[in-house]
Formats: sequence, C-alpha cells, structure tokens
Amino acid sequence: MSFKADIITLFPELFPGPLGASVIGRGQDRGLWSLKTTQLRDFASGKHRDVDDTPAGGGPGMVLRADVLAKAIDAISPENDPRPKLLMSPRGKVLTQNMARELANGPGVVIICGRFEGIDQRIIEARSLQEISIGDYVLAGGEVAAMVLLESTIRLIPGVLGAQESRDEESFENGLLEYPHFTRPADFEDHAIPKILTSGDHGKIKKWRREQSENLTRTRRPDLWDKKPTS
Amino acid sequence: MSFKADIITLFPELFPGPLGASVIGRGQDRGLWSLKTTQLRDFASGKHRDVDDTPAGGGPGMVLRADVLAKAIDAISPENDPRPKLLMSPRGKVLTQNMARELANGPGVVIICGRFEGIDQRIIEARSLQEISIGDYVLAGGEVAAMVLLESTIRLIPGVLGAQESRDEESFENGLLEYPHFTRPADFEDHAIPKILTSGDHGKIKKWRREQSENLTRTRRPDLWDKKPTS
Repeated sequence: MSFKADIITLFPELFPGPLGASVIGRGQDRGLWSLKTTQLRDFASGKHRDVDDTPAGGGPGMVLRADVLAKAIDAISPENDPRPKLLMSPRGKVLTQNMARELANGPGVVIICGRFEGIDQRIIEARSLQEISIGDYVLAGGEVAAMVLLESTIRLIPGVLGAQESRDEESFENGLLEYPHFTRPADFEDHAIPKILTSGDHGKIKKWRREQSENLTRTRRPDLWDKKPTS
Repeated sequence: MSFKADIITLFPELFPGPLGASVIGRGQDRGLWSLKTTQLRDFASGKHRDVDDTPAGGGPGMVLRADVLAKAIDAISPENDPRPKLLMSPRGKVLTQNMARELANGPGVVIICGRFEGIDQRIIEARSLQEISIGDYVLAGGEVAAMVLLESTIRLIPGVLGAQESRDEESFENGLLEYPHFTRPADFEDHAIPKILTSGDHGKIKKWRREQSENLTRTRRPDLWDKKPTS
C-alpha cells in the first residue's frame, strides 16, 4: 500500500511543482506515493461560487467558509479514512524531522491549504483537523507549506531515496547538524580540502566528522544541543 | 528600486511556481519585485558538465563543487552587489518573521539552492554565504525552501498586500499566534459563531481576540510565550 496524499486548495495548478522533480518525482513515477489535488471552489454553491466571506466581528481579509470546506473534506476523505487531516497554519504544531518520519510510516495525508485571512474555526473542530506549521513566519497560503511537508515526508518513505543517498548522517537524524562537505577540486582558490579527509583513515574521518557536527550544533543551535538524546 | 531575487538552481523550471500565484504573483506583475533564475549546470565545464563529485573522505551522495558554484555566483552577483547571498540549508539560521521583514526592507536576495548531499564548505566561506534554514527537517533540495523564504518576505514588501489584507494582527506580528476566525453561515452543523463576535461591541471583540491569542500562544507555544515582548 503506497502513501496517498490528497490536497484541498484554491490553486491545484501549483502541484506537483517541486514534488514532481528529482527523487521525489521519480518516487511518484514508481508508485511509491501518489498525489491528488481537489479544487475547493468546486464545492461552493450559489451564483458566485463563493468560498469565503468577511470575518465575523470585523477586521481585514476574508475567511474560508466552514460549509464549503466540509463538503470538500467529506468528498475526498470518508469517515473511515485512516489518514490524518492536516491544516497548514502558522498557529499549528511545528513540523520536525520526527514528525515527517512518523507521517512517512503512515498511510498518507489529507492536507487543507488555507488562503486569505484564515479558515472558519468550526471546521477545524468539526473535522478534527490537525494544525501544522512549517515555521515561525507567515506565508500567502498553505500551498508551499504543503509542498515542504510532503517533500520532507516523502523522501523518508522506504525506497524513495536509493542506497546512494543514505540519510543516517544528515542533519537532525542524530539530533545534530550535519558536518561540512568537501569534494574536488583538491585546491579551490588556494584553499585545500582538510588533510584528514584525504588521509584514508576512516576511523579518524568518522571522529572528525562527529566533532564537526557537535561543534556546529553547540555553537549554532544551542536549543538543539540541549535537547540532544544522550548516546 | 524594487526587490530583486536571483536564484541559482539545478531546477529553474520549478520557478516561479507558488511565487507566480495570487498576491505574490501580482506583486511581480506590478514591478514590486522581480525574479531571475540561473541554471547552475551552465557554469560547469568539461565533457560531462559535472556540477558535483563524490565527498572527500567517503560517504554517500554527491557534493556540489565549489568552483562551479563560484562561477555562477560571480556571474550574477558582482562584488559590489548589496544583496545578501543566502544558502538554503538545514544547518542554517532559522527563518523567522523578523528575518523576513528585514529582508523585505532590503534590496533583494541571491539564493543558492543545494541538492544532493550538500555543497563544498569552501564556497560558503569564500563567498560569505549565509546559511538559512526554514525549519528542523530535511528537504530533497533548496528549491522549496527558497520559495518559502521568498513568499514570506515578498508579502511584507510595501504595496504587495492591499489595505484589505492588513497584517498587524496576524501570527508572530505581536509575538502571539492569531486568534480564531469565523464567518458565515451563522450556523454550521449546529455550531454558532461566538456571540461576542456578532454583538457589534468592538471594544469587547478586540479584548476577546487578544485573550484568545494569548491563551492559544501560552498553551500551544510556551516557547514563543516566554519570548514575547512585554507591552
């Protein structure tokens, strides 16, 4: 059973976008995951097919209507759908590598992309939407946030990355930032590759990389360093 | 002088993508910002036009070459270019709403999108690249991270959002998460809009929203709450 992503959006034409490129796109071609977009406007009724209205209590912007969202969600995600229903929102739980790994091990996701000022709070509660944020900044809509969540998740689905692209040592996999990389040419603008990396001594290289990771994490991200699992 | 974004990438076809939609796209049409993409491979030499090579010291994946990156960067960003040169990287400084606002008030950005295992450390130092992360998760490449950085930044450029889309009360602008929104219909699956919002008493509405914001921030994001500027 492959990972199934459903996206409800006013901009379905933005997908797959980055999710169609490189290893992620090839994973879809190989059936390791699939993507379906749903145009929210198709579920609006009335002459103008309005999906939004002004905020109750006043204020700027427009708010997506609970009734229109309910119809779209119910159409693509029946009551027995085991997939979590996620709302991309700056008020949400902040996405982490651990969360991406948990999602990658599950059946897929239903993602609702907000636009405008926000969405009616009642639909969040009525359909148990989980609010997820990709970081502490505000976007113009949930679409690019959905891409980020899916890209970080899909690359962790078994088989998407080849053995060539192992992920054991990358940032966050061991609670640390990744060590610096070097490649040819040996000399770049009079800067050589650190000697230890060309020494052929794999034990020393491993130790050097670990030290680099630890130093980088401690100096750049003391918040991560303090939360690091002791090993 | 409008905001100028330059992007160095192996996937220029992914742009503008989400940056071409809605208010952000209209901002570009109106000349408030501009985007230029540069294909990194155009700066490779040799028969195979290789942009990457195996990591010095061994390990999985491929590393982008410092010499090829240097040619691309130097071609689009001369020495007197006042714009910061950003490398999207999970090891970087974490993007915040404040950082987006500072960038939006500047002349623009040059963004380098990594792919594969990473990029040669020597180019980061030789061209003073600032590493920026959009969050604590790993992506397949820097492209979607560049879209996030630009979308969050561009919407803060004066004139991009209309007066209709004021941003004074949105998440992070006052150190708080945003209060819940409601709109028509008045009754949704037997749930009414909170009475206070339909009371017409603007003082009470303002106070209620502030309390909602504070409660939400305190319960969901104690880390933000502790850093909140006292007002």
